[in-house]
Amino acid sequence: MNSKYKTIKYKQNKPSDIEDLVSIEEPLEMIVRYKKLRKWIEDTISITMRTPGDDTSLMHGLLFSEGIIDKYSKINEINLLGKKVGKYNLQNKIQFTLDSGENLDTKKLKRNFLTNSSCGVCGKTSMDSLEVVCKTKINKDGPKIKSDLITKIPDLLRQNQSEFSKTGGIHASGLFDKDGKVLVIREDVGRHNALDKVIGYSLIKNIFDTKNQFIACSGRLSFELVQKSLMANIGLLMGVGAPTSLAIDLANKFDMTLIGFVKSDSFNIYCGQNRILKTN
Amino acid sequence: MNSKYKTIKYKQNKPSDIEDLVSIEEPLEMIVRYKKLRKWIEDTISITMRTPGDDTSLMHGLLFSEGIIDKYSKINEINLLGKKVGKYNLQNKIQFTLDSGENLDTKKLKRNFLTNSSCGVCGKTSMDSLEVVCKTKINKDGPKIKSDLITKIPDLLRQNQSEFSKTGGIHASGLFDKDGKVLVIREDVGRHNALDKVIGYSLIKNIFDTKNQFIACSGRLSFELVQKSLMANIGLLMGVGAPTSLAIDLANKFDMTLIGFVKSDSFNIYCGQNRILKTN
Repeated sequence: MNSKYKTIKYKQNKPSDIEDLVSIEEPLEMIVRYKKLRKWIEDTISITMRTPGDDTSLMHGLLFSEGIIDKYSKINEINLLGKKVGKYNLQNKIQFTLDSGENLDTKKLKRNFLTNSSCGVCGKTSMDSLEVVCKTKINKDGPKIKSDLITKIPDLLRQNQSEFSKTGGIHASGLFDKDGKVLVIREDVGRHNALDKVIGYSLIKNIFDTKNQFIACSGRLSFELVQKSLMANIGLLMGVGAPTSLAIDLANKFDMTLIGFVKSDSFNIYCGQNRILKTN
Repeated sequence: MNSKYKTIKYKQNKPSDIEDLVSIEEPLEMIVRYKKLRKWIEDTISITMRTPGDDTSLMHGLLFSEGIIDKYSKINEINLLGKKVGKYNLQNKIQFTLDSGENLDTKKLKRNFLTNSSCGVCGKTSMDSLEVVCKTKINKDGPKIKSDLITKIPDLLRQNQSEFSKTGGIHASGLFDKDGKVLVIREDVGRHNALDKVIGYSLIKNIFDTKNQFIACSGRLSFELVQKSLMANIGLLMGVGAPTSLAIDLANKFDMTLIGFVKSDSFNIYCGQNRILKTN
């Protein structure tokens, strides 16, 4: 989603009036509704800036990444709420009604999001708790991908980024199969949102076949992106940008493959080289 | 702060072992301590992933940006807490003891950070509350800067980014005077942190002279970066990347100048062109 803005472009010190397409950033309030001790409870778990569109996937992916719902959780109702507001006439609230309130760890619900979901949660503690949540360890055998496929991913990602080509200001994440087929690509002004949308969409459409799939991101690789990929049980994550120390440490701990600085003729493998098949 | 990681670099499909310098990402727990009704209270207000170093500036800037403390707030004690942990042997907790507990809006303290401080808070509501907080409106006259200075900023920023040149994976923000003199530049894996560090440092060192200064950022311009600049009463923000819709709307509302896509021969002015002096 984007919008036209009147802009003055200086080019070689000459100003001219242009219309620039700008990526839309709007807040989304995410509310979880569940029954506990026979009473209905509504909790705002997060207010996140996002690019509107695919809000259902975004919230689904976020709840899943944070371990609040799992693959088999029943979501009884999904509602966009509130009156349409702002310049773009949007509903900026979404509510999921869960089936599993009695078992829901509401302390965790609160704590996870208090500690800033968009940055990933506290490193050490989080690594330990991930170990509990990720009962299924990353599959050590798959996906295996060919080295010459990797250098083609930035182009594949870019070609499918309809918004980036218009605004130049939006991140993307994509789920690919091991032969490089694009399964889903989503864009957002927040790179964590783009990945949540991909994961949420893949859960809703039931297209995960994690043994044969990998994730690619347009930007840098933070702890949080590794954490989300791990929760989705995807064993290989690559990105156009640099990884952080904690991203590598986390990937290493869970035997994931982490590849950074992916360009048209080079890339760096930070861990899990066993999944890369060198082509001639 | 960075660390060496063993890496396999593929270049034109030939693998070789290298050592890559990677930017460090570690969690920081920020705790506010204050007296209320004669009792000492400690509140964890945020756990944020950051690049270690200058944690005091980071927390100072964050508390100020969120309107928890102001320019004149007395901070009685600043302590790094907890035992040194992890690979890098760091203290990952910081505590500010405030003088002003009785007047502290603790509900706001909690709410602000619950709603995800690293993304900025809910757009519309936040714009309204900013109007209350920013009693001093942005100075309409200053800073005025010359058009040919703007195109030099990315280079100036880059030259002062000691970490970026090593790791290629870290954001920067800087405070400049209207003639382009670098007053302070800070780096962080999170671009919001880099700006908080700049603002916190400038407050601690008392170097703000907002009529004659501007801020420049290495990445894209989100609502949150405009919000932070606004809280610091800086009237001109520029960035190497694209702005979002809400960043432009917010800057517009407060008569700020917002400049995006700054390159060595061009830039776009999204609002507040009155502060730009065209040079010949």
